Amino acid sequence: MIVRPPQHWFRRLFDWRGSVLPNILFRLSLNFMMAVAAVISFPWYERLSLRLTTAPFSLLGVAIAIFLGFRNNASYARFVEARQLWGNLLITERSLLRQAKSLALAPAARQSFTALLVAFAWALKHQLRQTAPREYLERHLPARDRAEILASPLAANRILLALGRWLGEQRQQGALSDMLYTGMDRNLDELSHILGGCERIATTPIPFAYSLILHRTVYLFCTLLPFALVEDLRYMTPLVSVFISYTFLSLESLAEELEDPFGTAANDLPLDALCNTIEINLKEMDDQSPLPEKHQPDAHFNLT
Amino acid sequence: MIVRPPQHWFRRLFDWRGSVLPNILFRLSLNFMMAVAAVISFPWYERLSLRLTTAPFSLLGVAIAIFLGFRNNASYARFVEARQLWGNLLITERSLLRQAKSLALAPAARQSFTALLVAFAWALKHQLRQTAPREYLERHLPARDRAEILASPLAANRILLALGRWLGEQRQQGALSDMLYTGMDRNLDELSHILGGCERIATTPIPFAYSLILHRTVYLFCTLLPFALVEDLRYMTPLVSVFISYTFLSLESLAEELEDPFGTAANDLPLDALCNTIEINLKEMDDQSPLPEKHQPDAHFNLT
Amino acid sequence: MIVRPPQHWFRRLFDWRGSVLPNILFRLSLNFMMAVAAVISFPWYERLSLRLTTAPFSLLGVAIAIFLGFRNNASYARFVEARQLWGNLLITERSLLRQAKSLALAPAARQSFTALLVAFAWALKHQLRQTAPREYLERHLPARDRAEILASPLAANRILLALGRWLGEQRQQGALSDMLYTGMDRNLDELSHILGGCERIATTPIPFAYSLILHRTVYLFCTLLPFALVEDLRYMTPLVSVFISYTFLSLESLAEELEDPFGTAANDLPLDALCNTIEINLKEMDDQSPLPEKHQPDAHFNLT
Amino acid sequence: MIVRPPQHWFRRLFDWRGSVLPNILFRLSLNFMMAVAAVISFPWYERLSLRLTTAPFSLLGVAIAIFLGFRNNASYARFVEARQLWGNLLITERSLLRQAKSLALAPAARQSFTALLVAFAWALKHQLRQTAPREYLERHLPARDRAEILASPLAANRILLALGRWLGEQRQQGALSDMLYTGMDRNLDELSHILGGCERIATTPIPFAYSLILHRTVYLFCTLLPFALVEDLRYMTPLVSVFISYTFLSLESLAEELEDPFGTAANDLPLDALCNTIEINLKEMDDQSPLPEKHQPDAHFNLT
Amino acid sequence: MIVRPPQHWFRRLFDWRGSVLPNILFRLSLNFMMAVAAVISFPWYERLSLRLTTAPFSLLGVAIAIFLGFRNNASYARFVEARQLWGNLLITERSLLRQAKSLALAPAARQSFTALLVAFAWALKHQLRQTAPREYLERHLPARDRAEILASPLAANRILLALGRWLGEQRQQGALSDMLYTGMDRNLDELSHILGGCERIATTPIPFAYSLILHRTVYLFCTLLPFALVEDLRYMTPLVSVFISYTFLSLESLAEELEDPFGTAANDLPLDALCNTIEINLKEMDDQSPLPEKHQPDAHFNLT
Repeated sequence: MIVRPPQHWFRRLFDWRGSVLPNILFRLSLNFMMAVAAVISFPWYERLSLRLTTAPFSLLGVAIAIFLGFRNNASYARFVEARQLWGNLLITERSLLRQAKSLALAPAARQSFTALLVAFAWALKHQLRQTAPREYLERHLPARDRAEILASPLAANRILLALGRWLGEQRQQGALSDMLYTGMDRNLDELSHILGGCERIATTPIPFAYSLILHRTVYLFCTLLPFALVEDLRYMTPLVSVFISYTFLSLESLAEELEDPFGTAANDLPLDALCNTIEINLKEMDDQSPLPEKHQPDAHFNLT
Repeated sequence: MIVRPPQHWFRRLFDWRGSVLPNILFRLSLNFMMAVAAVISFPWYERLSLRLTTAPFSLLGVAIAIFLGFRNNASYARFVEARQLWGNLLITERSLLRQAKSLALAPAARQSFTALLVAFAWALKHQLRQTAPREYLERHLPARDRAEILASPLAANRILLALGRWLGEQRQQGALSDMLYTGMDRNLDELSHILGGCERIATTPIPFAYSLILHRTVYLFCTLLPFALVEDLRYMTPLVSVFISYTFLSLESLAEELEDPFGTAANDLPLDALCNTIEINLKEMDDQSPLPEKHQPDAHFNLT
Repeated sequence: MIVRPPQHWFRRLFDWRGSVLPNILFRLSLNFMMAVAAVISFPWYERLSLRLTTAPFSLLGVAIAIFLGFRNNASYARFVEARQLWGNLLITERSLLRQAKSLALAPAARQSFTALLVAFAWALKHQLRQTAPREYLERHLPARDRAEILASPLAANRILLALGRWLGEQRQQGALSDMLYTGMDRNLDELSHILGGCERIATTPIPFAYSLILHRTVYLFCTLLPFALVEDLRYMTPLVSVFISYTFLSLESLAEELEDPFGTAANDLPLDALCNTIEINLKEMDDQSPLPEKHQPDAHFNLT
Repeated sequence: MIVRPPQHWFRRLFDWRGSVLPNILFRLSLNFMMAVAAVISFPWYERLSLRLTTAPFSLLGVAIAIFLGFRNNASYARFVEARQLWGNLLITERSLLRQAKSLALAPAARQSFTALLVAFAWALKHQLRQTAPREYLERHLPARDRAEILASPLAANRILLALGRWLGEQRQQGALSDMLYTGMDRNLDELSHILGGCERIATTPIPFAYSLILHRTVYLFCTLLPFALVEDLRYMTPLVSVFISYTFLSLESLAEELEDPFGTAANDLPLDALCNTIEINLKEMDDQSPLPEKHQPDAHFNLT
Repeated sequence: MIVRPPQHWFRRLFDWRGSVLPNILFRLSLNFMMAVAAVISFPWYERLSLRLTTAPFSLLGVAIAIFLGFRNNASYARFVEARQLWGNLLITERSLLRQAKSLALAPAARQSFTALLVAFAWALKHQLRQTAPREYLERHLPARDRAEILASPLAANRILLALGRWLGEQRQQGALSDMLYTGMDRNLDELSHILGGCERIATTPIPFAYSLILHRTVYLFCTLLPFALVEDLRYMTPLVSVFISYTFLSLESLAEELEDPFGTAANDLPLDALCNTIEINLKEMDDQSPLPEKHQPDAHFNLT
């Protein structure tokens, strides 16, 4: 994710960080060349009575803008939901640890609990980005749960199971009454919802046909546009044509990027930083020290 | 559901998987022929002072685009809700099994419980696709519940009843206090919500009049369009006309497809794969082995 | 509600079931006559330099389409919420009966409970459609609650009170601990939400001014439209004008119809069939037989 | 709130009840005079080559329509949320009284409870409309809570506190176990949400800048519009210009009205009638008689 | 936040409070100068056949309006959610104190509890506005929690921890049964959600690329617009061009302002006043006196 630096409105016109320009630069250049071709071929093209006028393109442009608005809404809703799920992860894990402290559970037990909670966040991150969590888990998991979790193909869910077992043991040892057990178990159910919600976003994209239809229509629209504009605009065709194409292509490209918010593109969620925040919060609450260092955006204001 | 392969933006222009093109190809051809007819008949047609101009079609096109945007929103919302319900199915069943393990219920009892949970998902799938679940249920249901469930016309709901009875028996045998019973029973209520939510989506379509009105207006619009464009565009009429028609017809067709997300069309939910995921997850949690194989998309990237 | 039969896209163009055409036929005919008048009077009308052009109507048409989109959203949201409330009614009543069975309450008591639950659905239907529930209630209510419920001006709420009393008695007789009582009572609260939610939709329409403003602007727009189109379109004016009017009037009319989803128009909710479904489900769960017959759509695919 | 009478589509064109026409009549007259001025001054105005054409106004009109759609959405969402909160008030108070009856609490205690619940609704109404609740409260509050509640600057919240104390006393007297107490207390939390939600809507308007920007642009747009239309429409300018202005001004005015749904304008919520409904419902449940009379709309179909 | 004074529609046209005009005045002046340049250079500019017409700008303007509508929706949703979280803060803290009073906990304990609740609100405000809470906390925190909370880098979360400890102690001292403890602890979970929700809004802006794309396209659009309008409008170009630019720039600027609702700009949330309201409410409930004074808007109707 790109961190937004405070800046003047003018400088922002030329800001390239977080921009989708690199993704669409090639297509914009193509569009520019089409526009130049349109300007050059205009005399011949008119003689063949092959005319394109702006009227149908205006209708088409507005229709595409409406559908693109719909697509942006759908993609952005996924981004927002993904962020909310990670926000809830921090919230729920803080709640669980607060409960463990309020109920004065044994400090040693509480520390394994904290370790499992932190590991759950990291394991979820690895699962969503399809990277291997082994290295992290080997170092940080409590000894008794380690083997079982590392052996499982579904590590995050196994950690949740271990959290449940920890809670069940507290109950069997009499540290928690059934009532208190149930109060904390409800927060484990919440973790289950977070895990399942993230998996749902990661595995079920917006129906592929939406991408296809919009990708094609936007592309074809931008390609034909210069030929429609050239009659009115002549030498201004390349400028206006590239401008209109930039508007449509960049929003289409951004919608595509946000659709999968767990990726590592510039506008995706900074899962590493979020895990780091969770770890700092929980360890601070558990009075551990020193705390891990806070992740900072790199020189390009990028936070992974 | 079509699984989206990583691919270049250019290749996507010619990607036919998951496309709704087959559904609208006939109507697009009709439109092309109308456009050719419009070009050919133009001289006569003008002499009769039967004129169609783009201005009213522009107004109409934008209005239809707005209503189509509304219809796509409504259809997509049904798709998303259906997916969320199936996501919640996985989440809730994992929570229930986690609770059963945390509370150290007897392994034999836990296995019947797992079998019932898995059967619930498959029975729901069969109910939503209106196929017969008998074969599956005969093989996988615990012996004592089998006859009763197979005899019922509402199999999924009967399985939920059997899950409730299982829970009640645990309470009567003293394995669960009233408090713990209630904590798990709340998750059965959640299963009840999932079942009822899916039934609602399956049995109540978007009011039929919306489909009718949009279907007719889109169709008539596309049919008349070439006659309006021909005055300005002459020989370019077929190209532009088919392009505009493609945009409107494909979105109308996709909205129709997504409206019933439990079907087996290319953009519908992969209920088989979702049931398979649930089965793998629960059996893995219950330490059963070997686990069922994970469903893979077929050669056309299709997942049923 | 109109049940959608599987059908070919072509046949749907001429499908009249569920259509709002009958409601707007008179206004469409008026519009057609205005269009003919516009064509006939065009020469005079031009001489008086009373000109109407498409440009301002295009602006107005798009603005009205946007506001109509807003109105359709609002109406459809009411329809969806109403359907969800009735879905939750089925869900919650199934949950309550499942709980009663799991907790092994006395069969006789369970049967009165089932009867009350079914009666609640029918009484709610009668209340929303403002019909008299007396006949049904006299036949199906448990004897001891009958007099009290029939005497009340708020029958559905009284049945809910009777359900609460039934639950309180189970607790006093020791069949339910306070914990189990509370677990079931929460589902009665849910019934209370359903009752109140339906009452809210039935008694509070979308602010009347929205209907007025859109009704008037759509109507005036359609009336003036032919005079604006005639300059460009001449003899095609009636066709295009009726087409545009159809699009606007039918969506306005449908929005009006959906706004009150508990009515008996073609696109309203099939409350009879929903009550019937609830009755079948609960009686099947309670192992009663024979089950009531399932309501089927009539010859016009209409389900009340 | 205006109650919608059943009526024919034609009569509705001339229905003034609930209309926002009175609010915008002056501005419409101004617009009419501007249009007349535009028609009269057209010859001079053209000679000075001060031209306004419809094209930029078309663009501007559509943009304003889109932003007005957004503003209507935001205002209507506030109206809907306010109505839902008052719906929940009825729902929750009915649930609380049902619980009190199911648990067979002493009738005398139940009557004070009912009185407090009814008073809560009326006090909330007075707070939202910034009127003095003293008179009502003096007559209806239970004697022991009266002084304390009347002395408080936050009456509704004090009544909620009294409800909590009542519940706490039932627990201390042994009439409610901790479990049952908690079950009812959860509904008091719900009342707390209703109180806070209404306060939020009443004290935090939509950001003022939205009103300002739209108010200004709509106004300026309507003022300049006749000068843009006159070239094309000549003597029809006043008619079309007033029509377009009516569409924009009436929706802007209605959005302003709905933004504060607790006022006493024609389209605001009928808080008096809602309080009356709550009072009738609770007293009927508590078997009191005679019940208060039901508020009826006045001769102008207005319900306050 | 600007408090809206009751005022006439005419005066509002010239109301500068809460307006975003100051932010965009420079850009509007630039636009005015471009328009003057366009008018002056028009003869040369035409001779070079460098033509810009309104048609492509109309298409572009509508597309940008649609995307701007989307951006305003997203920003406003953040504003609304932020306000709801602060509304819930008041609601939940009132509920917690009501519970403490109903359960007749010791007055001294209740006072520390009240102090912690009030401090939580102020600490959250300081965290969101990135100011130092030390001064306030030193004066108002209960002595025993002070050192620990002041030492923590995450003050608000530490106060929540102290609230949890307070609750745990009440349970250990026998003042609260496990059931009652859990009932209150659920409201602490709610505070945890409020804290996490505010942090989420404060740390995760709308993806930066949206701002960039819209900022650039709006800016470029406004810059080129006069050159497109000049052919039609001549000397009216500056007026119309500045008007259109005002509409687009002001909405873009407001969307930017609302995106971060915790700031101190004119349209942001009045966090000081909200904390003050919470403090008055809680102290009034706790029968403390004198109550703090209610914050009033300053002479410019501004409430911080």
